[in-house]
Order: sequence, then structure tokens, then C-alpha cells
Amino acid sequence: MSDSTPTDAEAACFEAGIKFGSLYHQFAGTPLSPESASSLETAIGDAIENQPHCAEVTVEIQRDELEAELAGSTADYTELTGRFLEVEIVVDYEGCEVVTRMAMEDGYPLMQLESVRDAA
Amino acid sequence: MSDSTPTDAEAACFEAGIKFGSLYHQFAGTPLSPESASSLETAIGDAIENQPHCAEVTVEIQRDELEAELAGSTADYTELTGRFLEVEIVVDYEGCEVVTRMAMEDGYPLMQLESVRDAA
Amino acid sequence: MSDSTPTDAEAACFEAGIKFGSLYHQFAGTPLSPESASSLETAIGDAIENQPHCAEVTVEIQRDELEAELAGSTADYTELTGRFLEVEIVVDYEGCEVVTRMAMEDGYPLMQLESVRDAA
Amino acid sequence: MSDSTPTDAEAACFEAGIKFGSLYHQFAGTPLSPESASSLETAIGDAIENQPHCAEVTVEIQRDELEAELAGSTADYTELTGRFLEVEIVVDYEGCEVVTRMAMEDGYPLMQLESVRDAA
Repeated sequence: MSDSTPTDAEAACFEAGIKFGSLYHQFAGTPLSPESASSLETAIGDAIENQPHCAEVTVEIQRDELEAELAGSTADYTELTGRFLEVEIVVDYEGCEVVTRMAMEDGYPLMQLESVRDAA
Repeated sequence: MSDSTPTDAEAACFEAGIKFGSLYHQFAGTPLSPESASSLETAIGDAIENQPHCAEVTVEIQRDELEAELAGSTADYTELTGRFLEVEIVVDYEGCEVVTRMAMEDGYPLMQLESVRDAA
Repeated sequence: MSDSTPTDAEAACFEAGIKFGSLYHQFAGTPLSPESASSLETAIGDAIENQPHCAEVTVEIQRDELEAELAGSTADYTELTGRFLEVEIVVDYEGCEVVTRMAMEDGYPLMQLESVRDAA
Repeated sequence: MSDSTPTDAEAACFEAGIKFGSLYHQFAGTPLSPESASSLETAIGDAIENQPHCAEVTVEIQRDELEAELAGSTADYTELTGRFLEVEIVVDYEGCEVVTRMAMEDGYPLMQLESVRDAA
């Protein structure tokens, strides 16, 4: 069994996970329409970028998914949930850069580590 | 004991309460800094205005409270909570206009009915 | 146009709305499985009953809906959302008893005032 | 610069971070009193354990902190926030066991990687 002290790269990945969990569970359920999508994208990015070691957050609410949902509905708004979200978060922790992404895969919003680069 | 069928004015007040509870419990806990306050105000207003019968939502994050909190802290952000929020929501339900407000009173964020006007 | 000072019954309805909005937007998005449904029901009821003037909260997570959702999925959990919830909240404000209910109607979770009774 | 493909240990740390961010931002803001603390602890643990690779979640709401807060207040409840929470989460991902903890440090709720053990 390997040593148990976390490396900087592992700590960077932990930080990246915190950002994703925070983003999703803070904002899922927010009332959402085509008119409010843009300001919500901006606010989510700005809010999560406050968190430590968070270098960049890009949030795209999928307008085509949103329009399709509302076309099949009598309501003119819905709630933010994973299938409307594409998110990329870049964390920089002690020189390690971690790139993570959330997007739909097989009907589920999947959060994934894309790359871990250690400057050392 | 009076009749139990709700009046339009009572339904309008119920709707106004829903908006306040939604707003507070959706967004409380959001990471917040002076830099992200403006986009969060806009997004909260736009999101809650999606809800039925919601005529107008005005959200003001109290910059002075926020700056004071951060001045006494080693962090450069905090979380959205009631003491940073002043909110006015106007609901229009079947011709009844209800004006509601949230602001600090004696150290607590108090949600209050300001006025109920029935056009009938 | 009628007088604009809220009655006790109107304030009671406002309070009832706050509880519903709070309940929904605090807990929507919570990871949910058949195994965790019971403890979540209890915790939601206990949490919302803390709020002022809240006499009783009854939360029922619809097990049949939940099982049906998971049967059509490769995951073994989902997120709490309106279609899994039936809620009744009773508010007592200055002798006015307001009974409210949330349940699905035409595919939407509808929050409704059931009755408003003024003891006066 | 090292290779950028994430290791299992890094993926395990990412998963652990997701659980912490989820837990905090789903439940922060929940109305909380000494009477409701126990059912909320149970529900939080059960909910987060639904998430993939989550081996164990232990949540302790600090009763002494909660009592102290309420003693200095005219209210009989408050909101769940970091200073009332001690949490330990164990993630098991492809044979890597990651232990993480959240507790107060210098007045802030700090989420930390405790250990990363790779069975390989």
C-alpha cells in the first residue's frame, strides 16, 4: 500500500471536486427560462470563481435543451438541472492545473477530470 | 369562525410568500464577494421573476455589510445570507397587488407583507 | 380599491407560502434513493417546523414514482424534485389556521391554499 | 511537466471533493434547532451516501455551538452553516481510499484531504 500523505496534484483534484459539487447543489432548482439563462450563467461563474484556487469557471446553459423542454410543456419556465448545463472549471493549486468538465453522457450529467498537470 | 375558501387577496399573499422562501433558500450559501455581488443580484431577480404572478423583484446586496464582514476576516469572500440582502417583491394575482419586503430587523432578516391592494 | 393593510388571514397565507418556497428550494436536488427517502422526509418536516407559525409539516416522498424513475435508469439514485413530493403544511398565525398542499397536477408540482380559517 | 492523465488516486480525490461541495451547498441554510439536529444529521449522511464511490459519511452537528448561538438570540432556531458542522467522508474509487474531513479552523470551515491510500 502506498504512502497516504496527499500530493499537491491530489489536493488540486479534491479542490476541483469541491467546486463542482458546490456549483451543482447551490444552483440546481433555480427557476430558469430563456430570458434568465444568460444572467444565471454569469452569476454562477462569478460566484464559484470566489472559491479558493479557482482559476476559471465557464458555464453554458444549453438553450436548445431548454427550448425543447419548454416546447413540450404548458409552463414558460423550468428548473435548472444537469441536462441544461455544460461546465468547465480550471483549478490551480500550488502549481498544479486541473481541468474538469461536466456534460451529459448517456442521459446523466457526468463530472469528469480532464487533465492534471503538475508544473514541478 | 369565518368561511374557509381563500380569497384572491389571500392567494396573492400565499404566492408572495412562496417567492420569498424560494429566493432565500435557493441562493443562501452562494459564495459572495464585492466583485460577484452585482451579477448575483441580477440573476436572483431574473430567476424569481420567472415564477407565476411575480411582477417585480428588486434585490440589493448590502455592500457596506459585505465590506465590513470581509474587513474582519482573512478570507476575500463569504456566503450570501440574510444580513446582506434587501429584497422587494411585487406579486400580481387576479388583480390583487401584494408588496413584500425583506430586511434586517433586530439582527434578523424579516420577511414582511407591506401592502395588499385588491383592484376589485 | 380596498384598504392595503394586511389582515391576519393574509399574513397567515404569506407565512404559509414562505414555508413552501423554503421547503422546495432548500431540498430540491438532494440525492435520493428508496433507502434514503424515509430519513429525508423526517428531516424536511423537522427543519421546516422550526420556522415561525408552522404548526405541522407532513412530507411524503412518493415511493412508486421514485421506483418507476429508477427502473428506467442505470443509476441507483436520483435527485429530489417536485414529482416525488406530496406535502401538507399547516400554519397558525394569530389564530388563523391556513392549510396548504403541494402535489402533482397535469405534470407540475402545484402549491395550493386549501383553507383559511379565522378563529376570530 | 508531468503527464496529464489523471491517476485513480487523483480521480478518487476529485470524487471526494464533489461529495463535500454537494453536502455543504445542498444543506447550508436549512432551518436548524436542537430538536431537529439529529434527523438532519441522519438525512445528510443518507443522502450523500447515495453518490457514487461514497463509502461512508459521518455528520455531527455541534450541539454546543448551536446552543451558544441560540443563547445569544431571541430566536429558537438558526440556519445550518459551517460552524455547526463536523463531517468525515470516506470515498472508495477503484481501490483507492480517500478520507476527508471538514471542521472549523481559525473561524472557517475547512475541507481537507486527510489521507489517500492506494491498494495497488
